[in-house]
Amino acid sequence: MILVLRLGHRRKRDKRITTHCGLVARAFGADGIVLSGERDEKVLKTLRDVVKRWGGPFHVSYERNWKEFLKEKKREGFEIVHLTMYGLSFKERLKELRGEDLVVVVGSEKVPPALYEMADHNLAIGNQPHSEVAAIAVFLYELKGIKEDFEGWKVKVVPKERGKEVRRR
Amino acid sequence: MILVLRLGHRRKRDKRITTHCGLVARAFGADGIVLSGERDEKVLKTLRDVVKRWGGPFHVSYERNWKEFLKEKKREGFEIVHLTMYGLSFKERLKELRGEDLVVVVGSEKVPPALYEMADHNLAIGNQPHSEVAAIAVFLYELKGIKEDFEGWKVKVVPKERGKEVRRR
Repeated sequence: MILVLRLGHRRKRDKRITTHCGLVARAFGADGIVLSGERDEKVLKTLRDVVKRWGGPFHVSYERNWKEFLKEKKREGFEIVHLTMYGLSFKERLKELRGEDLVVVVGSEKVPPALYEMADHNLAIGNQPHSEVAAIAVFLYELKGIKEDFEGWKVKVVPKERGKEVRRR
Repeated sequence: MILVLRLGHRRKRDKRITTHCGLVARAFGADGIVLSGERDEKVLKTLRDVVKRWGGPFHVSYERNWKEFLKEKKREGFEIVHLTMYGLSFKERLKELRGEDLVVVVGSEKVPPALYEMADHNLAIGNQPHSEVAAIAVFLYELKGIKEDFEGWKVKVVPKERGKEVRRR
């Protein structure tokens, strides 16, 4: 099981970035996203609506206390992977992480120093400034690949050379 | 040469997503980003400041008329790659695109239908809704990999197991 934990959400500033984190987590094979920081019903609803239309399973939830959440997951046997531009190259750890239960953590602007200590792995998708959305995407892309099959979808794209086609049911 | 073209920027709504598109383009080896839609000096400045601090070369520019821009690039021999969830799988085209001059185009909410016609390739990084930031990241990651060496940097991360360390010069 792979969960993505998005820390430090701010309703005003992060609405779209956090939404993209959730969509990317789902599209690249995570089992769910957990939002922390300011509780934002809009983002939770947007993500749940996507699951309803485009399929799942994909779990969307909110946790006020991310430290407690991580401690609990550790007790359950999850490894905590913190994606950060300051970490070691993710590529060298991919092999040992494959098949494990993971919580993949991304922060927003300021990451609490405690996270670096709690994480079992502080890993960089390159050491340049870029994007938590891209970090989740590339990490999961290498770990799981692009997810093709979703259950209970109402809408599905029919891939085309040009233009748009969708199947509905 | 690989340029990323970000279409339809809206100052209010897209500030952070467009900034992330630019940062990701740079970190994954594109030579520049071209912004279109509403002109946004703040985003241009943010991206140029990152180049000044973290190094380049990486070109940041604005084009009001994206159609003319694409026509000109086509005349210069660039292939136009439109990343869209409605397209064909990008993996099958990677081989033929490697080594070519490319303009990689991502839209925002509504993509002008003309783009599907002008593009030489309408390619999907999976056919599920996710993020233009992630699409650029995974496409460039496969095409170019993570860029490690930048010229003229003033700040650089020293990768670490825990915590943050930067070199300055």
